Amino acid sequence: MLKLSRYLPIVASLKGYDRGLLARDMIAALVVTIMLIPQSLAYALLAGVPPQVGLYASMLPLLAYALFGTSRTLSVGPVAIASLMTAVALKDVAEQGTSDYLTAAIVLALLSGILLMVMGALRLGVLANLLSHSVVSGFITASALIIALSQMKHILGVSAHGDTLLELVPSLLEALPQTGMLTLGMGVSVILFLLFARRQLSRLLVRLGASAHVAGLLAKAAPVLSVIATILVVYLLRLDLQGVAVVGEVPQGLPVPGLPAVSMALVEQLLMPALVISIIGYVESISVGKTLAARHRQRIDSDQELIGLGAANVASAVSGGFPVTGGFSRSVVNYDAGAATQLAGVMTAMGIALTAMYLTPWLFYLPRATLAATIIVAVLALIDISIFRDTWRLSTGDFIAVLVTVIGTLFFGVEAGVAAGVVTSLGLHLYHATKPHITEVGLIAGTEHFRNVERHSVHTHPEIFSLRIDESLFFANAGYLEDFILARLQSDRQIRHVILMCSAINEIDFSALEMLEALNVALAELGITFHLSEVKGPVLDAIKPSAFMQELTGEIFLSQFQAFKTVSRLVSATEDGLSGL
Amino acid sequence: MLKLSRYLPIVASLKGYDRGLLARDMIAALVVTIMLIPQSLAYALLAGVPPQVGLYASMLPLLAYALFGTSRTLSVGPVAIASLMTAVALKDVAEQGTSDYLTAAIVLALLSGILLMVMGALRLGVLANLLSHSVVSGFITASALIIALSQMKHILGVSAHGDTLLELVPSLLEALPQTGMLTLGMGVSVILFLLFARRQLSRLLVRLGASAHVAGLLAKAAPVLSVIATILVVYLLRLDLQGVAVVGEVPQGLPVPGLPAVSMALVEQLLMPALVISIIGYVESISVGKTLAARHRQRIDSDQELIGLGAANVASAVSGGFPVTGGFSRSVVNYDAGAATQLAGVMTAMGIALTAMYLTPWLFYLPRATLAATIIVAVLALIDISIFRDTWRLSTGDFIAVLVTVIGTLFFGVEAGVAAGVVTSLGLHLYHATKPHITEVGLIAGTEHFRNVERHSVHTHPEIFSLRIDESLFFANAGYLEDFILARLQSDRQIRHVILMCSAINEIDFSALEMLEALNVALAELGITFHLSEVKGPVLDAIKPSAFMQELTGEIFLSQFQAFKTVSRLVSATEDGLSGL
Repeated sequence: MLKLSRYLPIVASLKGYDRGLLARDMIAALVVTIMLIPQSLAYALLAGVPPQVGLYASMLPLLAYALFGTSRTLSVGPVAIASLMTAVALKDVAEQGTSDYLTAAIVLALLSGILLMVMGALRLGVLANLLSHSVVSGFITASALIIALSQMKHILGVSAHGDTLLELVPSLLEALPQTGMLTLGMGVSVILFLLFARRQLSRLLVRLGASAHVAGLLAKAAPVLSVIATILVVYLLRLDLQGVAVVGEVPQGLPVPGLPAVSMALVEQLLMPALVISIIGYVESISVGKTLAARHRQRIDSDQELIGLGAANVASAVSGGFPVTGGFSRSVVNYDAGAATQLAGVMTAMGIALTAMYLTPWLFYLPRATLAATIIVAVLALIDISIFRDTWRLSTGDFIAVLVTVIGTLFFGVEAGVAAGVVTSLGLHLYHATKPHITEVGLIAGTEHFRNVERHSVHTHPEIFSLRIDESLFFANAGYLEDFILARLQSDRQIRHVILMCSAINEIDFSALEMLEALNVALAELGITFHLSEVKGPVLDAIKPSAFMQELTGEIFLSQFQAFKTVSRLVSATEDGLSGL
Repeated sequence: MLKLSRYLPIVASLKGYDRGLLARDMIAALVVTIMLIPQSLAYALLAGVPPQVGLYASMLPLLAYALFGTSRTLSVGPVAIASLMTAVALKDVAEQGTSDYLTAAIVLALLSGILLMVMGALRLGVLANLLSHSVVSGFITASALIIALSQMKHILGVSAHGDTLLELVPSLLEALPQTGMLTLGMGVSVILFLLFARRQLSRLLVRLGASAHVAGLLAKAAPVLSVIATILVVYLLRLDLQGVAVVGEVPQGLPVPGLPAVSMALVEQLLMPALVISIIGYVESISVGKTLAARHRQRIDSDQELIGLGAANVASAVSGGFPVTGGFSRSVVNYDAGAATQLAGVMTAMGIALTAMYLTPWLFYLPRATLAATIIVAVLALIDISIFRDTWRLSTGDFIAVLVTVIGTLFFGVEAGVAAGVVTSLGLHLYHATKPHITEVGLIAGTEHFRNVERHSVHTHPEIFSLRIDESLFFANAGYLEDFILARLQSDRQIRHVILMCSAINEIDFSALEMLEALNVALAELGITFHLSEVKGPVLDAIKPSAFMQELTGEIFLSQFQAFKTVSRLVSATEDGLSGL
């Protein structure tokens, strides 16, 4: 039983499930379904696949995640950024609207799913931590801007193309004279209504007597209200015959499970994009999952999450869908609406299934501008300009990482942007790691404490050079420590003893040990004795069998105080001896 | 004056230069010249360029390095690994023996030089530290093996090709039946003589009455003795007419400075190889330079070294040469022979110039087998199998890095090998960084010290969770700390206060601050107060203006002891209050 709940986290969630929890899950499922219908259609549009594919990607994947995922309230399905990245990845593979394009989208989901599950099996969940918050924030902000711009063509009722600022802006400007006024009017109205709904509607409802909670949930229905209203307007006024682009025929019914024939060439072409989409989707998903779980002392297992999201993507591929992940805003809504367990997700899937079976004929008259407006308003909420100010204030490295990510994403595309951001932040971290904090220390009079000679009034001895490094010693910073010591010796020829205080060294690697060995030899040739103090257990174990230990000219002291005392006495004794000659 | 010596380190070296130092430099120059003549010819052979190019690369580059380099005793010129990497880089660019090939070699040197100087100007010297000792050792060992194997064709007097084990071994085995017995005899004799010279000759000379120092230096003349002896044998017995391959016509005189016409296509093709050769050459050079400088309290400026080696490579290109760097064995010989300043290098260049002007006609009869033997014996000394055992004993990460580098280099080529090694060692480091050392701490009775609860008998409070992280907090490890705290809270519902001891946090980045902010909110929702203790100055400065500081539910304490005392009292007071109800 314990084992089962490890591989199927839902088992643990359903312990003690009762009617109260069932009611909560049902309400949450209803709210999320209403939100998901327009979103799934809209993100299908963004990814370049037929609208029903958005619905297909919102059924089985939710069931798969409910079975294998660890978050009780994460809402899995199509999301904005993964949909944009899908469109970008498939751009050079096939033309939108062809069956080859859809096949490629399915293969992309399948590969993402397999990659995520492999990473989960290898327990590589921690690697998501290598995407710094600044890179992720910058990437989301820039991608949201690209997504909003890419949807402007539907609002204007023109055709435009491109997935970077440099392509989109001129393309839109060129198409501007062809703007369809009816489409524009409808699109702008929906955008304004959705913005009003988000900012004012719930407040208005509260004033009209609704409870804050109910008002908040009702405001979430705004996108589905826009869908219903614009369908009615188009249907009644037959605006589809007057140039307003509509979704058109959407096949009724559930997807038939299966997979298309897959060529190796296609797999090779899509492997890298699938990896990038998986990682970005995973990071997005786990961050919201963690935040929500923490509020109830629930735990997200980052490796099991990889399995859960992987299963969701494989399920999406099997139902003819495209890459999915845990969406930020939908998950928050699910949580706020009271979702208690993964069953909320299962019921949401059922809601979408009912939609696919009975409501698709009504979608014929749905204007594309409505969906575009839904996307635009959704992604505008993701744009966070304050990241520039916050990182600028705190750290140059983070600011540079944000800047590189944003510029890369806007001007060179999503994949280039996120890659440049990750390389920059890791590069800056490594560059930084090559310059550890090292300080010369001296004894604070009347104590046994040793502190930085530059910040405290401390006692030192002219023939003893005591120093402390505030990091573990490894290949990237070993050379810097060596340089630091040698530079000091070059400028001060009195020194006869070097004591390295190792209190902050948790680990030592081969390069560092080789450096210490060479340093010991170099010091010996200069007639300088090399001591260590406060060496931690694991480091001592590593040093013991090494050549360094055998050749060490000095001693290893338990404390820096003892080292300083012993060596001071030694030095004085030698001087007394010399002066006695 | 100060400025001048910064950009021309030789100025400082020549202060107080006298006849004593001059004599030392002259002797060293003589010894190194004798060693360099066969080496420069041999490495030209290895790089696939005509023999005189080896001499050309051993004049101007030495002068350029003497002017701009900071090591007084580094011997710059053609070296084994850079020569092999040159041959590998040019393999697909042009055919050996053509003028296009030589042009490409010159362009490679020019690009290396420019790249090194640019890195120097950007002060990127510390980046060399990112090549771990295990990667460098593994790479050198594997490359040496490849070099030795690649020279076997000259010893056997056959033709073979390839630059990986998989290509070289079958190619040699196939050619084995064509072995030229005269060539083989000569090659094997030279190898045996050189091995004898290295291991026994100096000992023998000492027994014959020479001083150890002189005997050591005389033994270095063994390669040049082999050259003279085999030239004589070939010339007298006209072995060149009996199938022994000789060097043939070597143009007499000095190179005419100049540069070939360079196409952008060629530059693009050679840019990456030039970068790899530059970095490897730099790392090799700086490590020996540092070791030697330390023995005399001299300093190597790692950024100025980039300039020095860059200038040497540009100088090599201008004289029609190929990539050069500071050689390990020659530098040690230079140092041991007493070289005191960069003038030893200048005089070595003069010695090679005299060789090029007057001695080249004698090189006609020099057997290629002799040069190959020189290379083989030189590189065998670089093979270090103990690296496997040493790293295995010390750290799995280092062992894996060595293994990946060696296998990569042997089976996939030098560039792939070093790239795989660097990626592996950096990847392992980053993976490791995502799992920092975190420990729950408690108070050691009767003291103010807090230690690991698992290793010491300490005092804790059931409602207070005190913990310490032993690293700076940044994007890669922030998530792990968050997980650690949340996991503890999930398993222990009594906890009302979390105190994070920040004594080891030297820095904090944007991601970590965002995590702390989110964690504080999550803890607040659970009714848990979050405190910090022992926050260092720079970290406090970073935290102060942040949203985290404004929202922090608890306090920031100067010491962990004070934090624990204050919070314990707080908890007791609340309990007393409750029990009083």
